[in-house]
Amino acid sequence: MRDPELQALLDQQEIRDVVLRYCRGIDRLDLELVRSCYHVDATDEHGTFTGTRDDYLEWVANVLTRYAGTMHVIANQLVEVDGESARSETYGIAYHWGDPPDDRRRNLATGFRYIDRFERRDGEWRIAARVAVREWTQVVPAEQRWVIPPERDGRRGRRDRTDALYDFEPGTS
Amino acid sequence: MRDPELQALLDQQEIRDVVLRYCRGIDRLDLELVRSCYHVDATDEHGTFTGTRDDYLEWVANVLTRYAGTMHVIANQLVEVDGESARSETYGIAYHWGDPPDDRRRNLATGFRYIDRFERRDGEWRIAARVAVREWTQVVPAEQRWVIPPERDGRRGRRDRTDALYDFEPGTS
Amino acid sequence: MRDPELQALLDQQEIRDVVLRYCRGIDRLDLELVRSCYHVDATDEHGTFTGTRDDYLEWVANVLTRYAGTMHVIANQLVEVDGESARSETYGIAYHWGDPPDDRRRNLATGFRYIDRFERRDGEWRIAARVAVREWTQVVPAEQRWVIPPERDGRRGRRDRTDALYDFEPGTS
Repeated sequence: MRDPELQALLDQQEIRDVVLRYCRGIDRLDLELVRSCYHVDATDEHGTFTGTRDDYLEWVANVLTRYAGTMHVIANQLVEVDGESARSETYGIAYHWGDPPDDRRRNLATGFRYIDRFERRDGEWRIAARVAVREWTQVVPAEQRWVIPPERDGRRGRRDRTDALYDFEPGTS
Repeated sequence: MRDPELQALLDQQEIRDVVLRYCRGIDRLDLELVRSCYHVDATDEHGTFTGTRDDYLEWVANVLTRYAGTMHVIANQLVEVDGESARSETYGIAYHWGDPPDDRRRNLATGFRYIDRFERRDGEWRIAARVAVREWTQVVPAEQRWVIPPERDGRRGRRDRTDALYDFEPGTS
Repeated sequence: MRDPELQALLDQQEIRDVVLRYCRGIDRLDLELVRSCYHVDATDEHGTFTGTRDDYLEWVANVLTRYAGTMHVIANQLVEVDGESARSETYGIAYHWGDPPDDRRRNLATGFRYIDRFERRDGEWRIAARVAVREWTQVVPAEQRWVIPPERDGRRGRRDRTDALYDFEPGTS
């Protein structure tokens, strides 16, 4: 039996890491990683979509094809553990870019909050219910995009296993 | 007597959570939550305002009425505990929006840092002194705001108890 | 011998704090603080630069002189510890500003990720190898910069020891 305050600290960190893995999965298009963040019977309410985990995965996979890339920047994570369930609020900004650069529907940033109920089942914290709340949306005008020619640029983010993330896989160094 | 490194970890997390609750209180207009983040004799230096906790609360409540909404996105939180006091530096970006959309004073984002001295009194970490430092301010032009008609949008952030946050109150699931 | 889960929590926090100190060092121009985040034989791949720690320090010191200020906002930090090494992915947005305000090369924000291999040597976690990945770059147009006259403004960020951060030095209160 662990010191309850330390156990709560472990629980909070585990929950924060689930939300971070969710974003990694969305941005790298690793949808099985996204799926693993939810319990099998979880629900998600996300913009005009409301449904089950698997329906959400199908919906979001389709939405993501519109963009050349996304970046889900996650900030404030306030987790309140209450036994085997927890409330987690996460603030974030999602950046989306795509072609053509003057397409307002493909070049935008949005401020949001994920309001999650987490549950621990079989010792594992996962999302049981999520509501994504929108705060604001801004278009990124084409003339503000700075396109760096590849020969003058460094490493770019990729949406597959060629991303630099996978160069540093734990246990392979 | 706890392992001192683990105690420091608990202290750091408690301090980070105070700053996160501060932002929740500001953005949801829960000013009693904001007040609970400070010791009774705390001071705050914030833009042109400098004063006590209660004077700050009165000042900020007034400032917040200018906007239709705010979002205080909190990032880097570096906490250095030193016995019963601590230095905490928090980076953030505050988004403000309001009407009319072309009012530059109501539609802006600002990068800031909160520099806080925390003190633990009666076992509780709270802000004893805060200086808010401004880094930059950007206007959000009306033509970049994307206004989504409610029937095509999902859940929006609210500044009262109707926000989705309160659907997931701990202990009520 | 500590509870391994608690040890992992300590390791993760130590690693996150190194990345936060890196940003503090860059933004306050405390380059010795930046240097202390790397092992002596570390490598950094950063835009068009690839090289050793000390070469990187020289390169970045020069880049930083272009700007009047920078703010490296750090968000998602996902740390995976594997014995004496760890993979750390950090999302961030770097804001840069400078004069003249209409110089596109001096007024921009960029979304990036730091992909780091950390190693623990002599009990201390530091960066052994870093790749900085760029996601997007946006120019901040002069007409969106809101310049507040000093007499109507509060405390501003500084790039030296006059910054408010150093008013609250631990052990000096």
